[in-house]
Amino acid sequence: MSASVGVVTPSRHRFDAPLALSSGASIAGYELVYETYGRLNAARSNAVLVCHALNASHHVAGVAAHDPQDVGWWDNLVGPGKPVDTERFFVVGVNNLGSCFGSTGPMSVNPATGRPYGPDFPVLTVEDWVRAQAHLADALGIARFAAVIGGSLGGMQALAWSTLFPGRLAHCVAIATAPKLSAQNIAFNEVARRAILTDPDFHGGRFYDHGTVPARGLQVARMIGHITYLSDDVMGERFGRTLRRHASDTALRSEYQFTYDVEFEIESYLRHQGEKFSRYFDANTYLLITRALDYFDPARDRGGDLAAALAPARCGFLLVSFATDWRFAPARSREIVAALLANQRSVTYAEIDAPHGHDAFLLDDPRYHGLVAAYFGRIATEVSA
Amino acid sequence: MSASVGVVTPSRHRFDAPLALSSGASIAGYELVYETYGRLNAARSNAVLVCHALNASHHVAGVAAHDPQDVGWWDNLVGPGKPVDTERFFVVGVNNLGSCFGSTGPMSVNPATGRPYGPDFPVLTVEDWVRAQAHLADALGIARFAAVIGGSLGGMQALAWSTLFPGRLAHCVAIATAPKLSAQNIAFNEVARRAILTDPDFHGGRFYDHGTVPARGLQVARMIGHITYLSDDVMGERFGRTLRRHASDTALRSEYQFTYDVEFEIESYLRHQGEKFSRYFDANTYLLITRALDYFDPARDRGGDLAAALAPARCGFLLVSFATDWRFAPARSREIVAALLANQRSVTYAEIDAPHGHDAFLLDDPRYHGLVAAYFGRIATEVSA
Repeated sequence: MSASVGVVTPSRHRFDAPLALSSGASIAGYELVYETYGRLNAARSNAVLVCHALNASHHVAGVAAHDPQDVGWWDNLVGPGKPVDTERFFVVGVNNLGSCFGSTGPMSVNPATGRPYGPDFPVLTVEDWVRAQAHLADALGIARFAAVIGGSLGGMQALAWSTLFPGRLAHCVAIATAPKLSAQNIAFNEVARRAILTDPDFHGGRFYDHGTVPARGLQVARMIGHITYLSDDVMGERFGRTLRRHASDTALRSEYQFTYDVEFEIESYLRHQGEKFSRYFDANTYLLITRALDYFDPARDRGGDLAAALAPARCGFLLVSFATDWRFAPARSREIVAALLANQRSVTYAEIDAPHGHDAFLLDDPRYHGLVAAYFGRIATEVSA
Repeated sequence: MSASVGVVTPSRHRFDAPLALSSGASIAGYELVYETYGRLNAARSNAVLVCHALNASHHVAGVAAHDPQDVGWWDNLVGPGKPVDTERFFVVGVNNLGSCFGSTGPMSVNPATGRPYGPDFPVLTVEDWVRAQAHLADALGIARFAAVIGGSLGGMQALAWSTLFPGRLAHCVAIATAPKLSAQNIAFNEVARRAILTDPDFHGGRFYDHGTVPARGLQVARMIGHITYLSDDVMGERFGRTLRRHASDTALRSEYQFTYDVEFEIESYLRHQGEKFSRYFDANTYLLITRALDYFDPARDRGGDLAAALAPARCGFLLVSFATDWRFAPARSREIVAALLANQRSVTYAEIDAPHGHDAFLLDDPRYHGLVAAYFGRIATEVSA
């Protein structure tokens, strides 16, 4: 039987040593917020690091102590008896540097000025996040992870771990990810950023000082993102061309209203998602994280040769893609698989025929979860061996 | 040899009789701007109506008299010796009601108030446009078109002609179109509209009175549109992950700049397209045209039965789709083909393996143009018979 890890409280670690960044800049000192589930074994060999994607956080599993409604974003995957079984693994969720859920980021006070960093917060890369995560592992006394796992942008972090710190992970589990963004992927990010950057309430990133939030830009950015997370088919099944029911109506409407206000259910859904997002997500963080996505391209310094870029990796790999994911299509995962095989690495790869598009990595398709459970079952055997 | 129709000057027709609209509203009087190329034959049987898509106009072919840079949007298809041969056909291009290139629309003066309509301009449908076009045909003395042709939203108008006025066209040529928008199609339109509607310079659609233009919203809207017009592949081939060259650089840059400004060529391209669009396109017209796209669904009154909806059609049909068009994919055209075949209509259908995505309908792929040329060659024989 699977259950929840229960009520969880985040921890916080302060790093006083400066972190040198990919850009050449450095950050003087910083804090990372994290949660842990399960127990680190005596050999300190059963730790699993979970890397988050765009809008997620350290709160991977369980129920937040401060808010019983706040269930971890991968609670269906991580917990006692779940595919990443917290009865066997010590799971670490960390909020990335530059994010807006407690770790140091654009909303934090810049010690040089005594005011929020805002646009002065340095532009970061996936590799910067991974280096910061490695410092957290040091602080937790974890020399080597049994696995580093992530989906989407989190999968990119797991991949970067495999080459930046090849001796510090036994397995890399990268789900619904890509070795780099396509021009179309970058294009969607750029439109989202433009919506934020041109919102008059953005104030060049210093909106904190103006008591405003660029909510309009964030809403549009999130709406664009949402379209790319869902497959055309699942959007059709869930919403189709159904007209929105107004609060005063007792049945679904069947007539057009001839307005530019919400008319279709899909419009209502997207607006709701956009508005919700704009209330909790920081606009500077949105810019930072989408730019890190754009920049990720480990083969770039190797003349585009992904196999050469992944050559340092020593761990085992599980890659999973989803048939209807058009943001990071299965072909993108297969590029990674081919490059790893060229290096004679041990790779398990599955393409799951799930209908949900990119979002499938957050859902509990039994084939997908069964595969992750089996793979982690094998890791558990290695850990206890 | 194919040549241009040369320098063209638009004409304008004023309609004083009110037009009853799908919404139940009516428009008291209106003007339509149009261009014609070639000569109407004595039997008045060789007229071809060209219907435009979102941002196009009556200026289909030739060079505008007022601006030698302004070449018609389908000049590669329409002209002497071209697939729609103006040596044989009398071609009519019309700017739709509600558009912003001269026909009555939101920028026009509302006779009831003496000020621009703005948000008071009625919401229109594809069927409303077609009815207005039929009045223009009356004015031009064209009882029956040899063909009505259009791509994308223009193809929807051609389809609507076939059922609303079955006796008034011999052929319907509908390219890169769909029988209705999918939830994903509506979603993209809705994000674009939100960008415009929430731009503070929109002023509830009364921006003319404020001396402003919601340029930020229009830019974002156009950028989103552009992404959907191009295939992922062609975007990758044209832009890939190439970094933008700054004016001061002599070679393409190879290093990231670590900013949120333009970094990749694809970003530069999209911004340029967005800025150009925001200088010439009316925001209220953008709302109106995307809403007409959303609403188009001829099967809606027939319980979703497209064959029943198309049953009134009597003309011949040419449908063309493009393999890499993910906005209106070939499967969408095949839905129309199947419904027409169920009605025993004469249908020619081709899926062109062009790499350019939805934009392919505006380009001159030789297989595509060869097919259109052959089909119109057949129509020309009928006309002169």
